[in-house]
Amino acid sequence: MEASLTISLIHRSPNGAAEKLDQVAVEEPLEIRLDGHPVAVVMRTPGDDLELVAGFLVTEGIISSVEDLRKTETRPEENRVLAFLRDGVEVDLGRLTRHLFSSSSCGICGKATLEAIFSDFPPITRKLEVADAVLLDAPKKLRAAQSAFDYTGGLHAAGIFSADGELLVLREDIGRHNAVDKVIGHALLNGIGLESVFLLVSGRVSFEILQKALAARIPVIAAISAPSSLAVEFARSSGQTLVGFLRPPTFNRYA
Amino acid sequence: MEASLTISLIHRSPNGAAEKLDQVAVEEPLEIRLDGHPVAVVMRTPGDDLELVAGFLVTEGIISSVEDLRKTETRPEENRVLAFLRDGVEVDLGRLTRHLFSSSSCGICGKATLEAIFSDFPPITRKLEVADAVLLDAPKKLRAAQSAFDYTGGLHAAGIFSADGELLVLREDIGRHNAVDKVIGHALLNGIGLESVFLLVSGRVSFEILQKALAARIPVIAAISAPSSLAVEFARSSGQTLVGFLRPPTFNRYA
Repeated sequence: MEASLTISLIHRSPNGAAEKLDQVAVEEPLEIRLDGHPVAVVMRTPGDDLELVAGFLVTEGIISSVEDLRKTETRPEENRVLAFLRDGVEVDLGRLTRHLFSSSSCGICGKATLEAIFSDFPPITRKLEVADAVLLDAPKKLRAAQSAFDYTGGLHAAGIFSADGELLVLREDIGRHNAVDKVIGHALLNGIGLESVFLLVSGRVSFEILQKALAARIPVIAAISAPSSLAVEFARSSGQTLVGFLRPPTFNRYA
Repeated sequence: MEASLTISLIHRSPNGAAEKLDQVAVEEPLEIRLDGHPVAVVMRTPGDDLELVAGFLVTEGIISSVEDLRKTETRPEENRVLAFLRDGVEVDLGRLTRHLFSSSSCGICGKATLEAIFSDFPPITRKLEVADAVLLDAPKKLRAAQSAFDYTGGLHAAGIFSADGELLVLREDIGRHNAVDKVIGHALLNGIGLESVFLLVSGRVSFEILQKALAARIPVIAAISAPSSLAVEFARSSGQTLVGFLRPPTFNRYA
């Protein structure tokens, strides 16, 4: 369950080539099974698999809350998580299995036609005010908490903060969306109310991060780097607040 | 078909908040249909859609070469590409439609069980030697060619170079994998022999980039940033050369 791995490599510099040991971020597949059926394979950095799966199932709209799950079983040595639904809970797996899905680093998946990609989660109606000073302080806190893995240069970070700036949970992953699913899963499993927090991601922010946040009812999303056009458009119609290029002493508010 | 879009935003600085116009990278869904069936939706930056689809179909192993396609039709206004197979060509769409797929920013998709994620493309046996000086010169060329979109801060770049360092094609996209699919598609559609080129990507390199490159028979992959553990492992077993942290005057050779 290590997030990084030591490997040998040849380091080439003006002084020549030399063998060297260095850390790389671990990437491994995780298979998610729901009532015995494989429903997804996610390439992730091992660790917090249960949070990842809880977050994934909710943010992809497969279940509506973690209460829908009767039992979960992590099998790290097999890179599998088994999740079981409570009696009476129905999920639209057909939506997922009928179609073929593709990938891109934006992570849109599980929706095979154009019409299906905009989810129907209701918009955010209760605004959350986060003070500019709180936003400007957040990247430093995220960075301080993630420093342990900084050296691999290969992990995305996501953090959930209270409206007054306390970092409630931080997770890192080789996949941008996985880091988001992990912090959301952690919050859901620990009863953290997501209507009154903001999400900060270490890199860019695509449409799907906004969509995942909306599924989890997160009203404010901030990113250290740029949003995509569709992320801006999505936030403007979902009622979410979107902050980008959060690089003290400045930031942009897109929606 | 613009790669960036001008939007209005509120820029917050120590001098206060001010309305401002800025560019964001365009992200839009593209539906890929094969003989009329929707087979994938990719979130991509519009432009070079045909190259993207040709590259995608080959690097995902859905067709074995662009010769398998009888006809293609791009419908940019609908965000669709229609591709049609030549008579007698069979594709294993069942592999794709029987399962449910998931996403992550690594882009592993279309393979629903752990056993299925390692593709069975044969390893590279004919090594390609690329001089250190050629590798060290490549990031500068990539950067120079991509400068037009630099200002959005939101695009990944991929370039294909000849073994002696000529940049043959550069493409940019909001999705890391799309940029790779576009340069590969361009090469395939234009008869550029991929056995004697190297691929350079602007960011990190995951397992799936290596797998896409292997499907296209690219022997050498270089990245400006870090590889994942699985990318290193994959390259070591596929016979591909993997260079990371290509930041003159140094770089790492992982495989």
